[in-house]
Amino acid sequence: MPVCPFCNKGTNDYFLQSRRFAAIYNISPILPGHALIIPKEHKESLFELSDEEVAEFMILGRDVARLLTAVFETDAFNWAIQEREAAGQSVAHLHMHIVPRAMGDFVDPGAWYHELEKSASGDIDTFTRFRLSQVQLEELTMKMKMAALRLNINTMP
Amino acid sequence: MPVCPFCNKGTNDYFLQSRRFAAIYNISPILPGHALIIPKEHKESLFELSDEEVAEFMILGRDVARLLTAVFETDAFNWAIQEREAAGQSVAHLHMHIVPRAMGDFVDPGAWYHELEKSASGDIDTFTRFRLSQVQLEELTMKMKMAALRLNINTMP
Repeated sequence: MPVCPFCNKGTNDYFLQSRRFAAIYNISPILPGHALIIPKEHKESLFELSDEEVAEFMILGRDVARLLTAVFETDAFNWAIQEREAAGQSVAHLHMHIVPRAMGDFVDPGAWYHELEKSASGDIDTFTRFRLSQVQLEELTMKMKMAALRLNINTMP
Repeated sequence: MPVCPFCNKGTNDYFLQSRRFAAIYNISPILPGHALIIPKEHKESLFELSDEEVAEFMILGRDVARLLTAVFETDAFNWAIQEREAAGQSVAHLHMHIVPRAMGDFVDPGAWYHELEKSASGDIDTFTRFRLSQVQLEELTMKMKMAALRLNINTMP
């Protein structure tokens, strides 16, 4: 069994977090600022969350969008959850994509979704797909943490 | 100014609702069960909601997904919000898509998103795109309400 790429993450990788959820920078972003909201513990599906956890998940997502708005200078976003393999879920650990958008970022504006389908897995073929190095990922995570501090958005649970 | 197609909706159109949010059946579904969660009052963006409203929005969404699971016999879903025009928002009234999925429903599983981009507007070109009649829409809404009653999911706020 390969190790779950999201269970492998810890406080160093989280640029924002609540008690049970965390935000990480996508190792294979389809656009700058492409973030993922994940439960810290392994949960596969939204149906495994209590109402209270659903609320915490989404409120953290909105805080992340607020931070991305400031750092990436846009208020346009795609929010997406792929639940189960038939819906395109590639890592069996619940994750919500938040992708900052700008006019003209893709020639075909709907192309972001096809890119997303290729990007979620931690085991991406690095020959065909852009992927950040560990150092780049750490730098971006640090940049996001520092922006959150400047904006008085709480980075810790 | 054209009238907002979601502000035009009322209790007859809602198959599930909470105090400030409601679920409607998409008039131009990309797949059977394609639902939309909307605020009852006109809000354009997630950023206009309080934390409490974000929670209510998403918890209603999860109740809707539970209902769709029972009626359409799948536990796979695409959840999507398009925030602002640059992200593909076609109606300037916040709405979250919940689309039941099944293996093989599209030859290209990622094609649902391109269909979605064409489907959200109430002013769809009916010559190029499947659209329900008012009677069909009412029948499906009634079917969903009855299923919710059978499942003891509260259909009223």
